Amino acid sequence: MTHLDEQLQRPLQPKDGTAGIERPRALVDALPEDPEPLLELAARHVVSSRQFDRATLIQLFRLAAQYEATPALMHLPLTGKILISAFYEPSTRTRLSFESAWHRLGGAIMSITDPKSTGMAKGESLVDIAEMFNNYGDVIVLRSSEDQAVYQMLEGLRIPIVNAGNGIDEHPTQALADVYTLAKWRPDLFRGEVDLQARIRVGIIGVPSRMRTVRSLLLMLGRFPEAIREVVIISREDENFDAGQREELEAAGLVLRVVDQLDPVLPELDVVYINAIAWVGDTFESLGTGLHLTRNSPLKPGAIILHPLARGDELATDLDDTPHNWYFAQARGAVFVRMALLTSVVRRISAVMDTPEQ
Amino acid sequence: MTHLDEQLQRPLQPKDGTAGIERPRALVDALPEDPEPLLELAARHVVSSRQFDRATLIQLFRLAAQYEATPALMHLPLTGKILISAFYEPSTRTRLSFESAWHRLGGAIMSITDPKSTGMAKGESLVDIAEMFNNYGDVIVLRSSEDQAVYQMLEGLRIPIVNAGNGIDEHPTQALADVYTLAKWRPDLFRGEVDLQARIRVGIIGVPSRMRTVRSLLLMLGRFPEAIREVVIISREDENFDAGQREELEAAGLVLRVVDQLDPVLPELDVVYINAIAWVGDTFESLGTGLHLTRNSPLKPGAIILHPLARGDELATDLDDTPHNWYFAQARGAVFVRMALLTSVVRRISAVMDTPEQ
Amino acid sequence: MTHLDEQLQRPLQPKDGTAGIERPRALVDALPEDPEPLLELAARHVVSSRQFDRATLIQLFRLAAQYEATPALMHLPLTGKILISAFYEPSTRTRLSFESAWHRLGGAIMSITDPKSTGMAKGESLVDIAEMFNNYGDVIVLRSSEDQAVYQMLEGLRIPIVNAGNGIDEHPTQALADVYTLAKWRPDLFRGEVDLQARIRVGIIGVPSRMRTVRSLLLMLGRFPEAIREVVIISREDENFDAGQREELEAAGLVLRVVDQLDPVLPELDVVYINAIAWVGDTFESLGTGLHLTRNSPLKPGAIILHPLARGDELATDLDDTPHNWYFAQARGAVFVRMALLTSVVRRISAVMDTPEQ
Repeated sequence: MTHLDEQLQRPLQPKDGTAGIERPRALVDALPEDPEPLLELAARHVVSSRQFDRATLIQLFRLAAQYEATPALMHLPLTGKILISAFYEPSTRTRLSFESAWHRLGGAIMSITDPKSTGMAKGESLVDIAEMFNNYGDVIVLRSSEDQAVYQMLEGLRIPIVNAGNGIDEHPTQALADVYTLAKWRPDLFRGEVDLQARIRVGIIGVPSRMRTVRSLLLMLGRFPEAIREVVIISREDENFDAGQREELEAAGLVLRVVDQLDPVLPELDVVYINAIAWVGDTFESLGTGLHLTRNSPLKPGAIILHPLARGDELATDLDDTPHNWYFAQARGAVFVRMALLTSVVRRISAVMDTPEQ
Repeated sequence: MTHLDEQLQRPLQPKDGTAGIERPRALVDALPEDPEPLLELAARHVVSSRQFDRATLIQLFRLAAQYEATPALMHLPLTGKILISAFYEPSTRTRLSFESAWHRLGGAIMSITDPKSTGMAKGESLVDIAEMFNNYGDVIVLRSSEDQAVYQMLEGLRIPIVNAGNGIDEHPTQALADVYTLAKWRPDLFRGEVDLQARIRVGIIGVPSRMRTVRSLLLMLGRFPEAIREVVIISREDENFDAGQREELEAAGLVLRVVDQLDPVLPELDVVYINAIAWVGDTFESLGTGLHLTRNSPLKPGAIILHPLARGDELATDLDDTPHNWYFAQARGAVFVRMALLTSVVRRISAVMDTPEQ
Repeated sequence: MTHLDEQLQRPLQPKDGTAGIERPRALVDALPEDPEPLLELAARHVVSSRQFDRATLIQLFRLAAQYEATPALMHLPLTGKILISAFYEPSTRTRLSFESAWHRLGGAIMSITDPKSTGMAKGESLVDIAEMFNNYGDVIVLRSSEDQAVYQMLEGLRIPIVNAGNGIDEHPTQALADVYTLAKWRPDLFRGEVDLQARIRVGIIGVPSRMRTVRSLLLMLGRFPEAIREVVIISREDENFDAGQREELEAAGLVLRVVDQLDPVLPELDVVYINAIAWVGDTFESLGTGLHLTRNSPLKPGAIILHPLARGDELATDLDDTPHNWYFAQARGAVFVRMALLTSVVRRISAVMDTPEQ
């Protein structure tokens, strides 16, 4: 019997511990429930990480953890609701993550995956498309390679829109997935005061001014400065920040440092966030040598690696079966934190949490 | 706080009056219920506006208005039914309108949006595709740039098909949406005898022989000649009608006039139907100068504008926040009138209306 | 009143006998129920016809027949489950067949129909895509033009995958549909010992080494050698079998013969399986003259024709309304046998059959 024959005969294994339900359960236990911030998300657009305050983030992570720990939490609270999944910039991974979240809540989906067949391609204005979406769905998820598309569409909307990546501007739900992963890894960081010794050093390999995932992540980390000793940007660019970007983050309480070598700083880092290098264009790509992680990289014991995926050569697969691999848990958690956000935005929090009135 | 910040903080406004529920409620009250004509639509193909008699149209509009006024009218009567949404000619707007209608009724959808990947592209006959659809779905919505496709497919079908636009021939469900809008605007026009003074003058900017929306609309207006004083075609073509087309409309009781200037006739018109000019090709496009509407056009007070959308330059956005704008209500109503039609065609009228037997 | 007018007025006819419920009912009656083999399919990958033993096939056909005979067998047992329908090689027919099966069971679907927009196109590894799918769905249906894709993806999967055609290797669910058709046609062939006189001669027009449907069908026929007098391969290739392919089939008990002329052997055949000739490339296509079926072909009375469809010129439409046409029933049955398989794979057999425990 060959290896493949064995594999076909063997029942699939249950999910491993990291991706399992122990950690989300611990997160639920660690944080007190408060429906109020999620009720206030009702019918709100979600465009930027800036819109989330600390209390809202904590409740989103708590509800996400409830979904993750208890798949049958509630009986499909979004039955009859329609998501318009508009990916004018194609992205199978992000699209499926949102659509899986919506389907798990019982909702229906209309997908736009071929930009060339849309009115936008024929010159229809975003405001007119927004008016169409008002009538046809209950919430929109939009990805566009144009920074301004989500803002233009928003002017005509009476239903909420969720930004799933707009050019090099923001990708706030990816940041939710990133920080939710941190919350499952170390719930103690999210309970308020954190001892100096317990605070973490976060390394981010990427360019804050040119990577939407990095921009949104930094803004969201800025809601928890008491948990973060330092954020180290590892980049070989000359200009890493837009005008005012670094100042905004420092005003939020983050301590920032920029270095151009990865391995020297790696032993200090508790969290290493790495991104697909190709995203930032040709220049950085050629400079990328050395900015990659393998099993032989000098990682701190206990350090975790995050990556928004899909990955390229910058993150070696030999790390997959090490305890540093939290990027798979991060991808898995993305579904649950999007479930929590979407439940809030379409006003169904009262179906899944005890709420005073409603 | 910037304008955008304010907008993101502010809960979304409820829908305005025109798009709201007052008018559909008034329509429901104005027309007596009769399930019989809708029961007779069971399992019927819908290809042409010619298939709808007056009584059927009135009951479709009444049920559409019930759906529009009472979103929770019934608990997802099409659960378990499958729509095959086959857009061999891409159209996001019409596709989403049908799919939204179907999802709001609880049904499931299989979409074909990439004509190049289909058997048809590989030379498979429409009759064979029809046989496949028989086995896989409960109803088909077909858009094709070929006039004859729907007729060919129909030969092999045992499930109903709905024509969502076939070349330059017909687009009967767009006409349903158009006339449903008139019914919400002026229910009195649809109750039988109409006083001479109350009758309306309808202007249609377009070419009846070459625009499927115009062809289907005219046929449907022919079911209500007692409500219409005159139909004015505004066109700069020499030949506006196919052989027999004008005669058929006049035999139905419509009074037709053709003019080539818009502004002189505009002050007389109660309803102005305008279409995207590019649809009819290069010749008309260059002649189109002057055949457009703006806030400064000499519209009659109380006149309403209809447009099947998407629009081009022919309809200025400065009309959007005037009372002339009924084109947004028209797009919204398209979902509900398609819900009414689809409920009828898949034999579920007894789930939403009181019926004698069944 | 024209022919078309009549057709539009006439209610659709119910399905005819062949495609009706009499034969699946007879199949259900002919075979004893045993949930055990289907329970053992729980969470298993389905890649090859080799994985199905005789008892499993019989129970799949029996459950398929129950679904076909009793559309309302159970109340949507897959509600809340998500299918990832990944057609990296486009195929509307097979995709819709799987998606219809899943929807009829109440499940939700996320489709990937545009290979160019996926991570795979951007160089993402199949193992990483598998990890993504683990988190986003409950089962995967994969079609790929690469033989190895399904095997590579399988290495990273914790959810089951169903092979919907991998290059020229296999298409096991098509074989399920083929043999299910035989079971409805002649249930007596599947009850164990078969009289010599009752055994059938099966002709297969195609090349076993180069057609995945033929490869998978032959393997599955090998589970029922007692019912088959002979399998005749009609082909004009020099090399019809891969190394070991013929030997494996003969070891299973099949008697094989290869001929290069169709008409001389046709009067002996009880079952004629024909395939779209274009599938095997230019060489065979030019040799294909004569390897086609029409109403005038010397078919044995009572013989049935199978074809996986879509068809080309090799199968004339003048056969459609003869009793030889079982290819339409075959296409119809494909939905039900896939329903049976998917119900098993996602562990929901206990929802539709009486099971001892669970």
